Amino acid sequence: MARRKLVYEGKAKILYEGTEPGTLIQYFKDDATAFNAEKKDVIDGKGVLNNRLSEFFMLGLQRIGVPTHFIKRINMREQLIRQVEIIPLEVIVRNFAAGTMAKRLGMEEGTPLPRPIVEFSYKDDSLGDPLVPEEYIIAFGWATQQDLDDIVALALRVNDFMAGVMHGVGIKLIDFKIEIGRVWDNDFMRLVVADEISPDSCRLWDIETGRKLDKDVFRQDLGDLADAYTEVAKRLGVMPSNATNITKPTLIN
Amino acid sequence: MARRKLVYEGKAKILYEGTEPGTLIQYFKDDATAFNAEKKDVIDGKGVLNNRLSEFFMLGLQRIGVPTHFIKRINMREQLIRQVEIIPLEVIVRNFAAGTMAKRLGMEEGTPLPRPIVEFSYKDDSLGDPLVPEEYIIAFGWATQQDLDDIVALALRVNDFMAGVMHGVGIKLIDFKIEIGRVWDNDFMRLVVADEISPDSCRLWDIETGRKLDKDVFRQDLGDLADAYTEVAKRLGVMPSNATNITKPTLIN
Repeated sequence: MARRKLVYEGKAKILYEGTEPGTLIQYFKDDATAFNAEKKDVIDGKGVLNNRLSEFFMLGLQRIGVPTHFIKRINMREQLIRQVEIIPLEVIVRNFAAGTMAKRLGMEEGTPLPRPIVEFSYKDDSLGDPLVPEEYIIAFGWATQQDLDDIVALALRVNDFMAGVMHGVGIKLIDFKIEIGRVWDNDFMRLVVADEISPDSCRLWDIETGRKLDKDVFRQDLGDLADAYTEVAKRLGVMPSNATNITKPTLIN
Repeated sequence: MARRKLVYEGKAKILYEGTEPGTLIQYFKDDATAFNAEKKDVIDGKGVLNNRLSEFFMLGLQRIGVPTHFIKRINMREQLIRQVEIIPLEVIVRNFAAGTMAKRLGMEEGTPLPRPIVEFSYKDDSLGDPLVPEEYIIAFGWATQQDLDDIVALALRVNDFMAGVMHGVGIKLIDFKIEIGRVWDNDFMRLVVADEISPDSCRLWDIETGRKLDKDVFRQDLGDLADAYTEVAKRLGVMPSNATNITKPTLIN
């Protein structure tokens, strides 16, 4: 693993050059940040949990034909992904009001929305990832109208699937954020789900108790973040302890 | 419950007049049938499990905005539903080859399909529910082209959701069948998911072991059907034992 070329370092993940052209290695850090990195901490084991959970969700999406950047998990903290051209948008799907939406519209957190709402914010930390109307996106050339139509359709499929996953284990999917990348197969451009899907990027509430099982636990000082993420992993049967056996390279060869 | 008017009796369910106009009571029997009722048995507890599971799936679908006929569960074996005009089609969504598709095309059961496939069979026991092309459906007036387009979109949303539910609890959704009904709200016609969603109407394989957890256990004499359905209910945390406490009328009043 020595002398790997670092491609990009973000708040929660690092990207290295991959083993083959067109691939990257995505490393999950234990760092937790909130409020545009004004609040920071290191949560022991978060990276391991998110690596495993993101693999689990991406594989499930691929099974139903939603394309993703995921290729395979390499070890406890790393996964091999396709190199994509990230569209500079956070694609947010909301089923219940929460977070910035609840705040901006003066709604109570947890209010059911009349239908799932897809919204976009422009990925720029220095601007605080501002909410943008579709018109901005097209006018500034971040994506075309066709891209946006496809992204909305993709995001709603991810929502249906993730709502199902969570419904099956007693969790309400309040909202989530994905990023979308462009990949080219020969000359054919496809949009794929990129980045990660994990309790860092979703809001997850226990159906019975309303207990928050996502990054709001950190944002709002509600307890131990690793405990909350472990609870999600445990319900889905994807504990990192199982994962170890599967991926140790010595066992594969 | 005496002197209720029976509206329709099918192989696995009975419909009675509901408590209010436009509603029906759907009673889940323990009867299991296969191969167009050539094979029959009574599986103690199946009706209770399917009543609870169908409630669970329908509520989850409603939460993501997929309309269904489900209103509320009444007791262990009965649920209140909206009276709908059933479109005489079985809408089948397949993710992996199995059942009649595998047989008709000479494919091995479990072969992944290139994408989810929606197909229709004409609901008529005397004909053995034959597979029909969309052209037949439109020509014979069972549904319009617009209906079919809407039904395909609805069926694919149900597939995304159900695949998610099952993925979350270690089960592969091989295929499933739904029925669609028309309801009128004022003069506005809507299509809703009707009938039931249960291991009677899905093919469900354990991801690890391949164990079948659906009606094929009965069709193919693979063991105890109630055990298989109980396993599904247990993984989803919807055991009828919990349900009893919630629904006993004496406890509600």
